[in-house]
Amino acid sequence: MLEGIDLGKKFTKEEYKSIMPDLQLKLAALQRKAKEKDIPIIIVFEGWDTAGKGALINELVTTLDPRGFYLHASRDKSEDDKDKPYLWKVWPKIPARGRMTIFEKSWYNGIINSELKGNNDIDWVDTAGHLNNFERQLHEDGYVIIKLFLHIGKKEQRKRLEALQEDPDTSWVVTKDMVKRHKKYDELVEIYEKVIEKTDSGHAPWTVIEATNHNFAKIKIFNTIIEAIEKMITESDMHKIEKASGIEVLSNSDKPDLSQKLVSSILDNADLTKTVEYEEYNAELNKMQKRMRELQLELSQKRIPTIVVYEGWDAAGKGGNIRRLARALDPRFYHVIPISAPTQTEKAHHYLWRFWLSFPENGYLTIFDRSWYGRVLVERIENFCSSDEWRRAYSEINDMEEQLTDAGANILKFWLHVDKETQLQRFEERVNNPEKSWKITDEDWRNREKWDLYKDAVDEMLFRTSTTNAPWTVVESNNKYYARLKTLSTIIESTEKRLGK
Amino acid sequence: MLEGIDLGKKFTKEEYKSIMPDLQLKLAALQRKAKEKDIPIIIVFEGWDTAGKGALINELVTTLDPRGFYLHASRDKSEDDKDKPYLWKVWPKIPARGRMTIFEKSWYNGIINSELKGNNDIDWVDTAGHLNNFERQLHEDGYVIIKLFLHIGKKEQRKRLEALQEDPDTSWVVTKDMVKRHKKYDELVEIYEKVIEKTDSGHAPWTVIEATNHNFAKIKIFNTIIEAIEKMITESDMHKIEKASGIEVLSNSDKPDLSQKLVSSILDNADLTKTVEYEEYNAELNKMQKRMRELQLELSQKRIPTIVVYEGWDAAGKGGNIRRLARALDPRFYHVIPISAPTQTEKAHHYLWRFWLSFPENGYLTIFDRSWYGRVLVERIENFCSSDEWRRAYSEINDMEEQLTDAGANILKFWLHVDKETQLQRFEERVNNPEKSWKITDEDWRNREKWDLYKDAVDEMLFRTSTTNAPWTVVESNNKYYARLKTLSTIIESTEKRLGK
Repeated sequence: MLEGIDLGKKFTKEEYKSIMPDLQLKLAALQRKAKEKDIPIIIVFEGWDTAGKGALINELVTTLDPRGFYLHASRDKSEDDKDKPYLWKVWPKIPARGRMTIFEKSWYNGIINSELKGNNDIDWVDTAGHLNNFERQLHEDGYVIIKLFLHIGKKEQRKRLEALQEDPDTSWVVTKDMVKRHKKYDELVEIYEKVIEKTDSGHAPWTVIEATNHNFAKIKIFNTIIEAIEKMITESDMHKIEKASGIEVLSNSDKPDLSQKLVSSILDNADLTKTVEYEEYNAELNKMQKRMRELQLELSQKRIPTIVVYEGWDAAGKGGNIRRLARALDPRFYHVIPISAPTQTEKAHHYLWRFWLSFPENGYLTIFDRSWYGRVLVERIENFCSSDEWRRAYSEINDMEEQLTDAGANILKFWLHVDKETQLQRFEERVNNPEKSWKITDEDWRNREKWDLYKDAVDEMLFRTSTTNAPWTVVESNNKYYARLKTLSTIIESTEKRLGK
Repeated sequence: MLEGIDLGKKFTKEEYKSIMPDLQLKLAALQRKAKEKDIPIIIVFEGWDTAGKGALINELVTTLDPRGFYLHASRDKSEDDKDKPYLWKVWPKIPARGRMTIFEKSWYNGIINSELKGNNDIDWVDTAGHLNNFERQLHEDGYVIIKLFLHIGKKEQRKRLEALQEDPDTSWVVTKDMVKRHKKYDELVEIYEKVIEKTDSGHAPWTVIEATNHNFAKIKIFNTIIEAIEKMITESDMHKIEKASGIEVLSNSDKPDLSQKLVSSILDNADLTKTVEYEEYNAELNKMQKRMRELQLELSQKRIPTIVVYEGWDAAGKGGNIRRLARALDPRFYHVIPISAPTQTEKAHHYLWRFWLSFPENGYLTIFDRSWYGRVLVERIENFCSSDEWRRAYSEINDMEEQLTDAGANILKFWLHVDKETQLQRFEERVNNPEKSWKITDEDWRNREKWDLYKDAVDEMLFRTSTTNAPWTVVESNNKYYARLKTLSTIIESTEKRLGK
């Protein structure tokens, strides 16, 4: 693919002078317009050494309003990050709505280098899949993604390297790694082709920039960016018209999902009569907490991160359950993250962004009191997101969890289940007990009215996101003692397995 | 001071059993109450090895709602942080309103270790001063700060170390550093005394916890925390009553500040007729941009961070001025941070918190388009903060900037000054030019009406925060060419000085 490209294309100085000023004005205006419309933009620069990346980025950004963009220069992974999920460092850098981020080298750099070294420390087919999912998610969330590959031929690269080396003012620019990569040009061209091919998509296409002629490269870069932003502005306007005219309501995705309805309810099958007496509970709890503490020490020494997700009905006993788990843990190595409605800043990003920021460091255990599953529960029921959005969340979430487990994390997810009568009893208890009345709000009663809607959503969630690497456990919680022991024993068992016991 | 303390105090098992349950209930209830009232709480644990810090923290946090606190275990400074300001890593960890953060070891650990090693890598008198200011700022912003020092005697420590070493299950706990520190007990006691003495204050007092007897230590810790939170809740209620009854308006701090009025206006003395012709401007600009680029390369190689602050009248030409500076820079090593009204999350923290998060890494240059000076400008004029708050901001800001420059940063601050007539001309130009009309808002006109109030605020700001290490430069900006050259040449000069040229 790269081989067939005509690298001789160019613009003369006169052509350049007649075309460029218009492009610059247009781009500056589009940057403002995208900001007004809250459109986030990501621009990725990849390509050969000496293809002119630095200079071209420079010329691009001096056209832009410097207050509107953020440039991330590449940095090699530090030792600390090596066993983190591949996209761990990328998520925090994703721009908020209305902002632009330019990546000089990017999430592609890692797989390319790993392939070139041939050390297989990254499973590149898996990783390419995650990158595609990642870009698709952002695209579906309204991001413009522009990926530019700056291409020059082998001879041209040699010429440029030699020119740099000959001039004493620039010879320091040419590093040993650059010379090594030049020697491997033929090998590298195949890697680039492979990566570009596997990660080229309608929502985040690659554009090869023929970079032999600087003027040509610059004009093509400006033009590519302008077209991509214009396209998104049009789409965003269209989308608003469609929304206003109610077209979205008629879309396919809102048809009832028959296959789902044919699945029997997982919740209906839970045996809520399970119970345990206090004496037994107390003895078992002490034993399990002791065991958990031992295991946590080992997790911490072996630097394995653990993620525990708590979801469940209001008044199912989440708080007390978490407290019993927390008491078993060394407080220096765990954190409880309570999740409530997203803040302004969080809303200005992709909905998964805030969770990426709070996943545990290696050796730590993080308990999420509610989680990213809010997307397919409360956000679905209360129409805080569109049906397209919550429908695609299942695979987005599965993909995210797979990235975490691939990188070594252990994930456990609990649905604390009670029946409707038990919930009512507990609500009334709270209302009548002044020490507990702070626990109950009007919202709890409103949610209760939507019990059946929630039940369907929970069943679908359990069905679609219970994966081998990150399974759900339904915890029968009519009896709180039973529930606490089941949660703790599930974590113990899973941890033992993870530790190879 | 530590020497005089009676370390024989204790509670019997019976006493403990009769006291503790009440304290636990009380603390849990206070945690909830503090959350409701949006009171942020900081608890610091320092003290001798084997004094029982880990166990006591554990028993404390198991009483708390795990969703309401965050525990930071100490970590040694990584290589990356060594030349950062001392409080660089602390600011991001400060809890938001209504949250509680417990520090196992804290910002005191660094100075104590540095003193013990005797390597003088931290100027401890300066640092203690910064810590006091830091804690005072937080206190004045409504934070509860509880500092606990767990104290045991030398003999007791030896006994405990020996007991740990003898048991094969616990011998690994005793590190070489612990043994070394035990041998230096007498030296260390003097360091602790010195540090406690210098950083004990009404707003963030130290409490020495006699930790020979575990029951005694635990009860005293619970009691200390309970009293501190109760005190703050009372103060916060009182404050609301005072506010409602208008008492604050009569406070001293609202008297006109005579000494300030006697100072002649810095702005009035600016010569706004200064001007430069386009030809000269263009030639000079090119020369200066080239020079700036060379200097930036050196800054980046020598890993010196640079902070450039832009403040100024609306329409004084901030945007264009920043653009000319940005064009002189390698985009990989600078960032422009536009500052607007704080977000929800930012408002839930101390007003300086968000700036600490965006200061440059070593070798980078960060341009702030508006800044922390908003506190004494717009927030003062628009009553977004109380008069006490903006009045104390001057010294808070001076202290923050001193910490940054002490750690090696170069700080430049520009006030872009135009007269009222020039502003009016530019406003009208914007209104009449459809390509520029997006630049002007109703707020600009409203601000203009408050010109005289702003002028006083600017003069006071220039007077109070122009320090040797972080000076203000008033940039006469009626002529934009002149202004751009003055800014750039000021940065060049200051950078050359910083680089020892």
